[in-house]
Amino acid sequence: MLDKTFRLDVRIYWEDTDAGGIVYHSNYLRYMERARTEMLRSLGFSQQQMKESGEALIVVSKLEITYRRPAKLDDLLTVHTRIASLKHASVIFEQTITRGDEVIAQGRVRCASISASTGMPTEINPRIRQALLDYLGEPRD
Amino acid sequence: MLDKTFRLDVRIYWEDTDAGGIVYHSNYLRYMERARTEMLRSLGFSQQQMKESGEALIVVSKLEITYRRPAKLDDLLTVHTRIASLKHASVIFEQTITRGDEVIAQGRVRCASISASTGMPTEINPRIRQALLDYLGEPRD
Amino acid sequence: MLDKTFRLDVRIYWEDTDAGGIVYHSNYLRYMERARTEMLRSLGFSQQQMKESGEALIVVSKLEITYRRPAKLDDLLTVHTRIASLKHASVIFEQTITRGDEVIAQGRVRCASISASTGMPTEINPRIRQALLDYLGEPRD
Amino acid sequence: MLDKTFRLDVRIYWEDTDAGGIVYHSNYLRYMERARTEMLRSLGFSQQQMKESGEALIVVSKLEITYRRPAKLDDLLTVHTRIASLKHASVIFEQTITRGDEVIAQGRVRCASISASTGMPTEINPRIRQALLDYLGEPRD
Repeated sequence: MLDKTFRLDVRIYWEDTDAGGIVYHSNYLRYMERARTEMLRSLGFSQQQMKESGEALIVVSKLEITYRRPAKLDDLLTVHTRIASLKHASVIFEQTITRGDEVIAQGRVRCASISASTGMPTEINPRIRQALLDYLGEPRD
Repeated sequence: MLDKTFRLDVRIYWEDTDAGGIVYHSNYLRYMERARTEMLRSLGFSQQQMKESGEALIVVSKLEITYRRPAKLDDLLTVHTRIASLKHASVIFEQTITRGDEVIAQGRVRCASISASTGMPTEINPRIRQALLDYLGEPRD
Repeated sequence: MLDKTFRLDVRIYWEDTDAGGIVYHSNYLRYMERARTEMLRSLGFSQQQMKESGEALIVVSKLEITYRRPAKLDDLLTVHTRIASLKHASVIFEQTITRGDEVIAQGRVRCASISASTGMPTEINPRIRQALLDYLGEPRD
Repeated sequence: MLDKTFRLDVRIYWEDTDAGGIVYHSNYLRYMERARTEMLRSLGFSQQQMKESGEALIVVSKLEITYRRPAKLDDLLTVHTRIASLKHASVIFEQTITRGDEVIAQGRVRCASISASTGMPTEINPRIRQALLDYLGEPRD
């Protein structure tokens, strides 16, 4: 799998910080999701369409994050997103958040495709899966 | 209309604060909504049921808030909620947030009943409206 | 006072929405603050510097907002910000949030300058005040 | 180390949910932090005091979470918190979030003690460490 990386910049505002003067730890998960959403948008898929299609939903099923350095008010961070694994019913994203050359946080996020009606694991929408394979430069299944 | 007040305590956590060391200003709106939700729950109405009933939704249509003093990490605040006006398609709540004897913020929130399908103003669910009238000690319409 | 308007685009992500399928009402206050922050940044003032200068803090003291239409997942909103009044210890911003030609919400936000040490009202930092006057095309005091 | 568990109930409000009709995934981290804060409060330590003491800060340095089932509006969840490991400069918490008998999410959170001035790892405040040892029923060092 090629090491293609999608980049999204995120500005830190007052709402992102806490009384410790740094970004509140759960907020990095929001930036990581914004980046996954924009990566999919760049491939032609909007969350609203996927939601309205009423078929499979992609939800976070497992997440690991290591915090390296605190980010602060006004920082301009970059979320670097790559696909580490793409299976029939799940995708694993590796996401690194940087401020210039410094690593702020590193995460690994497993997203699963579940049926909107039953909540059970189900195949990722084939059009999305193919678009991810094409993006990764993989041969078609 | 009698001056009946519903009280809800809210504890301030790290997530509620910002880098100024105080509660981030938009978070008070969340505490005010928690209080309106608990007031309705105390009358027998849950948000999930109201949502699933698929009929009218109650949404915030207008809101004013004055910030008097900052709240801080660990503070135990109280949200005092009273109904200032109850019409056919809207309710106005007056809500004061205190810390002991100090007033932290004062708000006035207009909620409107809208149709879940069309988004247009519609009558408040009669059972909820009657429960609010009973709560207020008003004679039945 | 000239009618100069600062524009900031805001994308709506999952984090911004609630179970009603629309943007949670308190989140618009965050977009309005992002816009005030970016307006000041465009004039050369960063929040972190202002915070670290340890002098006056600018805090929201009063806020009114009217919700016209709900915004949804994936919407690209624009926050239009203008200064409605500039006094020695306070500024009033008028902010309108639109989606294309539609008005989503309209707000009026009074910000006060307070002493970082005492919390009492104090003059707005003269450099910021002058920059705002210059921006507005007002003659120097 | 004894298997002592601290329990905190958390009610789910509109603010906690997203347009998928379920709790937004990053919010579970907030409930887990509320629970760690309340566990420490039950032992006599408030976050504000720890913050104002100006010594060591306890920050999240690593976190893993597995999402088992979605929580919804109005749910009453319980966060079960136990200490899995207590070292000189770090603590590992195991936290399970349940709704009745169902497991909603399971997390493992490593918190590190860092110097408020330098940001470098430093010993956990001895009074807090001793209180945690006493709580766990461990012999004094």
